[in-house]
Amino acid sequence: MYNVAIVGASGYTGGELLRMLLNHSEVEIKDITSRKYDGTPVHKIHPHIRDSGLVFKNKQPNELDADIIFTATPHGASMKIVPDLLETGAKVIDLSGDYRYRDTKVYEKWYGLKHTSDIKGVYGLPELYRDEIKKADLVGNPGCFPTGAILSSYPLVDNDLVDRIVIDSKTGVSGAGVNPSSTTHYPNIADNVNPYKISSHRHVSEIQQELHGFEDVKVSFTPHLVPVIRGIQTTSHSFLKEEHSDITPDELRKFYEKTYGKEYFIKLMDDGEIPHLSSVRGSNFVHIGGFEIDDTGRVVMLSCIDNLVRGASGQAIQNMNIMLGLDETTGLKHFGINP
Amino acid sequence: MYNVAIVGASGYTGGELLRMLLNHSEVEIKDITSRKYDGTPVHKIHPHIRDSGLVFKNKQPNELDADIIFTATPHGASMKIVPDLLETGAKVIDLSGDYRYRDTKVYEKWYGLKHTSDIKGVYGLPELYRDEIKKADLVGNPGCFPTGAILSSYPLVDNDLVDRIVIDSKTGVSGAGVNPSSTTHYPNIADNVNPYKISSHRHVSEIQQELHGFEDVKVSFTPHLVPVIRGIQTTSHSFLKEEHSDITPDELRKFYEKTYGKEYFIKLMDDGEIPHLSSVRGSNFVHIGGFEIDDTGRVVMLSCIDNLVRGASGQAIQNMNIMLGLDETTGLKHFGINP
Amino acid sequence: MYNVAIVGASGYTGGELLRMLLNHSEVEIKDITSRKYDGTPVHKIHPHIRDSGLVFKNKQPNELDADIIFTATPHGASMKIVPDLLETGAKVIDLSGDYRYRDTKVYEKWYGLKHTSDIKGVYGLPELYRDEIKKADLVGNPGCFPTGAILSSYPLVDNDLVDRIVIDSKTGVSGAGVNPSSTTHYPNIADNVNPYKISSHRHVSEIQQELHGFEDVKVSFTPHLVPVIRGIQTTSHSFLKEEHSDITPDELRKFYEKTYGKEYFIKLMDDGEIPHLSSVRGSNFVHIGGFEIDDTGRVVMLSCIDNLVRGASGQAIQNMNIMLGLDETTGLKHFGINP
Amino acid sequence: MYNVAIVGASGYTGGELLRMLLNHSEVEIKDITSRKYDGTPVHKIHPHIRDSGLVFKNKQPNELDADIIFTATPHGASMKIVPDLLETGAKVIDLSGDYRYRDTKVYEKWYGLKHTSDIKGVYGLPELYRDEIKKADLVGNPGCFPTGAILSSYPLVDNDLVDRIVIDSKTGVSGAGVNPSSTTHYPNIADNVNPYKISSHRHVSEIQQELHGFEDVKVSFTPHLVPVIRGIQTTSHSFLKEEHSDITPDELRKFYEKTYGKEYFIKLMDDGEIPHLSSVRGSNFVHIGGFEIDDTGRVVMLSCIDNLVRGASGQAIQNMNIMLGLDETTGLKHFGINP
Repeated sequence: MYNVAIVGASGYTGGELLRMLLNHSEVEIKDITSRKYDGTPVHKIHPHIRDSGLVFKNKQPNELDADIIFTATPHGASMKIVPDLLETGAKVIDLSGDYRYRDTKVYEKWYGLKHTSDIKGVYGLPELYRDEIKKADLVGNPGCFPTGAILSSYPLVDNDLVDRIVIDSKTGVSGAGVNPSSTTHYPNIADNVNPYKISSHRHVSEIQQELHGFEDVKVSFTPHLVPVIRGIQTTSHSFLKEEHSDITPDELRKFYEKTYGKEYFIKLMDDGEIPHLSSVRGSNFVHIGGFEIDDTGRVVMLSCIDNLVRGASGQAIQNMNIMLGLDETTGLKHFGINP
Repeated sequence: MYNVAIVGASGYTGGELLRMLLNHSEVEIKDITSRKYDGTPVHKIHPHIRDSGLVFKNKQPNELDADIIFTATPHGASMKIVPDLLETGAKVIDLSGDYRYRDTKVYEKWYGLKHTSDIKGVYGLPELYRDEIKKADLVGNPGCFPTGAILSSYPLVDNDLVDRIVIDSKTGVSGAGVNPSSTTHYPNIADNVNPYKISSHRHVSEIQQELHGFEDVKVSFTPHLVPVIRGIQTTSHSFLKEEHSDITPDELRKFYEKTYGKEYFIKLMDDGEIPHLSSVRGSNFVHIGGFEIDDTGRVVMLSCIDNLVRGASGQAIQNMNIMLGLDETTGLKHFGINP
Repeated sequence: MYNVAIVGASGYTGGELLRMLLNHSEVEIKDITSRKYDGTPVHKIHPHIRDSGLVFKNKQPNELDADIIFTATPHGASMKIVPDLLETGAKVIDLSGDYRYRDTKVYEKWYGLKHTSDIKGVYGLPELYRDEIKKADLVGNPGCFPTGAILSSYPLVDNDLVDRIVIDSKTGVSGAGVNPSSTTHYPNIADNVNPYKISSHRHVSEIQQELHGFEDVKVSFTPHLVPVIRGIQTTSHSFLKEEHSDITPDELRKFYEKTYGKEYFIKLMDDGEIPHLSSVRGSNFVHIGGFEIDDTGRVVMLSCIDNLVRGASGQAIQNMNIMLGLDETTGLKHFGINP
Repeated sequence: MYNVAIVGASGYTGGELLRMLLNHSEVEIKDITSRKYDGTPVHKIHPHIRDSGLVFKNKQPNELDADIIFTATPHGASMKIVPDLLETGAKVIDLSGDYRYRDTKVYEKWYGLKHTSDIKGVYGLPELYRDEIKKADLVGNPGCFPTGAILSSYPLVDNDLVDRIVIDSKTGVSGAGVNPSSTTHYPNIADNVNPYKISSHRHVSEIQQELHGFEDVKVSFTPHLVPVIRGIQTTSHSFLKEEHSDITPDELRKFYEKTYGKEYFIKLMDDGEIPHLSSVRGSNFVHIGGFEIDDTGRVVMLSCIDNLVRGASGQAIQNMNIMLGLDETTGLKHFGINP
């Protein structure tokens, strides 16, 4: 049994880590921290987690003694504690944006924060960086939108097929976190669609980092808040390069099969089958479909993930499994809650 | 007072015509027809319409005596009765797709039906074709997706600014009509996003008809069903032509103000203001916003309409007002039901 | 034309007053006040109200000059300004709880506030107190739950049929107002049912005031927040007195017909017809149905209202019409937005 | 490893059995039957269940060879096959209403069907009938409403505290099954509350069977369909007997603790804590709260279950575990998906 700790466990991603780790056969939760809820039993904050015996503690980094530490802390806060956590000898999986960037300048531009730590994390998208994650002490767990966007479009850029990608994403409201605001007020969300930061959401920089590289691909992103609790549905509109204008849907699918065919958590939909949030709800699976090309040379790809699981805590556990040398699927095999 | 009749009044668009026409000061509803519900009082089908005294009748076209006849009949059914209705001397507003196309071949391709009528309708988008509508005996009332898509992007193509437009639309479920199906089953829609006909929805042809014309614009369209009862939110991603790559958001806005500045039903949002379905719910208004350009040369425009009002019955009444020489806003001045 | 003013017009009930009064043929809105939004154009707060020319002003009571003043102010705040507003010669309709009680002690107990004004308002339920409202200078507009509860059960107590009533109500979230809180956070409401104050909601005192009177009726109340934007669905479980244990559903219906048969805004459903929120959404109508009795002697009655219209602003306008001697239905004839 | 088969596995309860049994450590799914989908891979019907290798087969009862057989067949269909299934030597858990009743006459009255089998099932509510279930060959798995209703009120009647109970339940739409109808049409459910069979739902008979027994308790039931996918929230209004009119909330709670204190799946909420559907979503837990008494002598108790899990398939697996002598919680320990 490995010991784990969760720093900042009172939010939604903390709750999801708890939900899944309490059923994980190879780890034991030693500590869950919260400044605000010091001394509070966990079910007062996460009412579905009953009789776990866990209590929030306001502990400092050096008071933690664990093999793996998850930091479910806000952007900017993580980089202040991660170096100290690594000092304890633990491996760290950070769920904030602080350790996702190869180029700190990009982070500083989009997050408006000075990056004060010179430690580098491995980008925790297992299907792309499994080998690096295996050896990493620090993983920067991907953002929710980037996870769905990158996975749905990566084979297109990896095979140099397209020169422009427009990511149009629809996210559930849990992505906004546990704190209420006008944005998450029920009467403003229900029966509505809320596009936001339509040309300037910071996640575009993370998507560009992973899909770009190839300098001739233009990557754009527009997120929409929809009346959904959890899940991100991504529609990726890409435009074939002149030289690939005669590619067929079947050929397109082959590229995806080559990339993802052996991946446990990535499921490619059958012809004509649309991926649905309900199929991945509460699970770590990624459903990818689409494989259509219209007569303007536009490729349409679709993906669905649970933003709190595959877009955050489930992916973090997948990374943990890899870092600990466990079967990558341990504790994550449950299917989605459908309907 | 003018007499009106509604053919096929038992569906959602029929209900909306009733709801609004019963409060219209210049018309009286003489007949509402339904084969299925012959003899049934209207509130048995539209339970919100109480004490109107109206009863569905199974009447033939030549039994109708009205100044204006709305045909809320399925695609293919309209063309079988519209010629006879025009024979009675009535003006006709058809809410199906049968009379929206300048080129019948396009209709036949996308609807898979032989077009049997050689009468031409005027495309009933008042802001673009007001003068023609004024003189028309037959108006083909626009589709719901096309109304939101065309109005949000028209100034871009009218001013030759872009060479490609991707319309990514999110629609409420009432657009699927009153008949239940697996597609509209609550557990399949709630907490979900359902893209469909992702590269081949027939409405693309109607959008292309109005935005194309200019041969160098490529127009694509992908619709999504979202957990919303009524409303269509459209996000239009367009790509600036090389020669317009330095256009500013302010200049962009000016083109929209020039086109729509005097239109009662079209409201341009303030800078940074996002249009919302809740603001137009139940109303005939169109809210247009966005006016952003990202660093890849992508223009993002947004629009919101109520699919049953501005996307169907309200626009039909607006057309009626124009055809009868009434104030265009008669009976349509109510604001949206927000929240 | 009568002049009206709205004090505290930035919340949901203020928005609804604006939406409906701007289409009311006999009144003109002179002033809308808000301390917080002094100088702000109305559409910045109520984005559906465009081009009205109205601007929030931070005005004092004695600066208002209107025939009718609506106070959409919080409980406790109203009683501080209503006396001054009456001093200006205006008639006042107060939408808070401050002037709904015949016995100030009951108010003080349930609202936890000292009542500082000795002016009495008329309880503004038009179907019960029309004559008094006609002569009133001050009306205490009923609460949302009480409106649905009282109207659905009044004939039962008026005819002395039952000795106990349990009101089990389900309300939309707009009843919680425009300010976000954990209670109205989308992920807490969607796909959930939230009972609250299950044996101690203050509205029970208002329901008791109107249904009690008859000392032998016990009235209980439990509200539930459901994933609905607007509307209150009330299920009233009542228990027949011994001496009426053999009453038939038809006889029961007759009592309701006698009470409400001539009321424009109250619609009794047909046999077997269930009232729906969608049928009254955005409208001032009250739909009442049920009329069933099970073999334990329980009577089941149902009602639906729009909490912001019939449960607040629409009823306030109905009261205004009565107080001004106008046709009671002026500006309120629109049917519900269904679906 | 035990072999299991599911008869009629294409509906929601079938899908839930599959979802949970595929992660159950002690059983293997040998057969899933469906007449309609003979030869179809399971993911075509249950898109969240990928790569299971399972295919629907149209098998007859005598072709099945399993230790446990679940019959997820319609009322009336089960009794035609259960005798044959028992003949194969399997133990059977029937999810229909056919084997829930001690008195077949009650079944025949409420289901309108002649009961053709004289085999008796044990009522599969483990907390009440664990010992009988252990020895049973046939279990009648309880209905969804009854599960929530009985568990929330049982200690009240078991301790003879009340003389009348009114169960007011709110159910998610998945309870209506996988087949679309007007009742489940999204625009009819969303933003609405639909009471139905308000005084005559057949589940009242099952609730009465378990809560009655004590002849002086009158039990009534009214269900409401709310805009929720899964879950049943039950509000139980009960009336204290004269001799218990001075019972305190603390004493009330003690009765519940005595009954349920050692039950793994039943969680009693803290004082003032409201049970929520989100806390049990996708799980087998039952959350019970309330423990309030108003000044009319009304007791308010609340419960939440997932209708497809604890109200159907999860409870069936709990019964299976008991029948097989396994740890009752095997495969059922996952917490709810919150939010």
